[in-house]
Amino acid sequence: MTKRIDANPSRGPSDHSVRDQVVEAATEHFGHFGYEKTTVSDLAKYIGFSKAYIYKFFDSKQAIGEVICSNRLEMIMAIVNSAIADAPTASEKLRRLFRALTEAGSDLFFHDRKLYDIAAVAGRDGWPSAQKHEQRVRQLIEQIILEGRKTGEFERKTPLDEAAYALYLVMRPYINPVLLQYNLETASAAAALLSSLILRSLSP
Amino acid sequence: MTKRIDANPSRGPSDHSVRDQVVEAATEHFGHFGYEKTTVSDLAKYIGFSKAYIYKFFDSKQAIGEVICSNRLEMIMAIVNSAIADAPTASEKLRRLFRALTEAGSDLFFHDRKLYDIAAVAGRDGWPSAQKHEQRVRQLIEQIILEGRKTGEFERKTPLDEAAYALYLVMRPYINPVLLQYNLETASAAAALLSSLILRSLSP
Repeated sequence: MTKRIDANPSRGPSDHSVRDQVVEAATEHFGHFGYEKTTVSDLAKYIGFSKAYIYKFFDSKQAIGEVICSNRLEMIMAIVNSAIADAPTASEKLRRLFRALTEAGSDLFFHDRKLYDIAAVAGRDGWPSAQKHEQRVRQLIEQIILEGRKTGEFERKTPLDEAAYALYLVMRPYINPVLLQYNLETASAAAALLSSLILRSLSP
Repeated sequence: MTKRIDANPSRGPSDHSVRDQVVEAATEHFGHFGYEKTTVSDLAKYIGFSKAYIYKFFDSKQAIGEVICSNRLEMIMAIVNSAIADAPTASEKLRRLFRALTEAGSDLFFHDRKLYDIAAVAGRDGWPSAQKHEQRVRQLIEQIILEGRKTGEFERKTPLDEAAYALYLVMRPYINPVLLQYNLETASAAAALLSSLILRSLSP
């Protein structure tokens, strides 16, 4: 699961497992005490490594946070992809996409562990992992619209990129963890209502 | 502009002007130092009144904050109402409503003075002023949809309350100051794109 962050990919499997260990411990520690309040020294003490040893594997605290964030976002995309895989229509795919993103986001960042803090920093500071996730969601939306245009489910007048970006903007408050924290209670009802609105906007 | 907060409405015009003075000074002070970090004692010192004297006019710091928040929200609604007053169609009313809410919100809470702090607390703690504002916006949306249904601009199949609430949800990230802070840079472009999406969703 762990991604290479440092510049030396030839360190071999045992280094991999050290990296995994650091990421696992950091996930726990950040989950308890918050990402922003934790220093690499705190982390080193918690794991029982020296600070210098951790820096052999990760350039910075952010590099560790990026791996955790990437892992979570990978899990969200895996849930989303499996949710939409067998949807019979493009409309149903959009509904499931919205629902799965909302639910998986709530679970993985808020309920499973208190990792909201990392997600918030990642969103605020535009971490590559957060930007990549946004790109992937936008591409997925565009693909589904294209599919629905081909089958005649959706209208074809609106420029594709405009339609896709507007849909993304509707979903964004329930996808972006920084915004989702203010929408948690109403998120699933909102996702259903807004999916219907989106589908009305796409009807030919 | 100042609203009565205390229980004794018979104090007469001079008390009114004291209330105005307190609200004016508090607007300045909160704007500089933030609502949450300011105490009634700070405020009293700043104005040159005793704390007890301020408490003769306002029950609490929140009571003062409520007046400021109400005033700002009244100003936003006045701007909105004048923006939509002469719109030729219901569609154009919706576009102008969205644009005016977004722009006035950005200006009055973020640019004019740094009163975001009050708006955030009002939203978070469900102050009556914030709830009333939400109700008014939702009613206005419902009225405009009804108007467009009568003229044949909008579809009539979707239950009115569902259509209105879904529209409100689309606009909410740009109306609610707590959410708007994360959307400030993209707000006006988003308002335009989302207005078009909304209108597509309403087309007969």
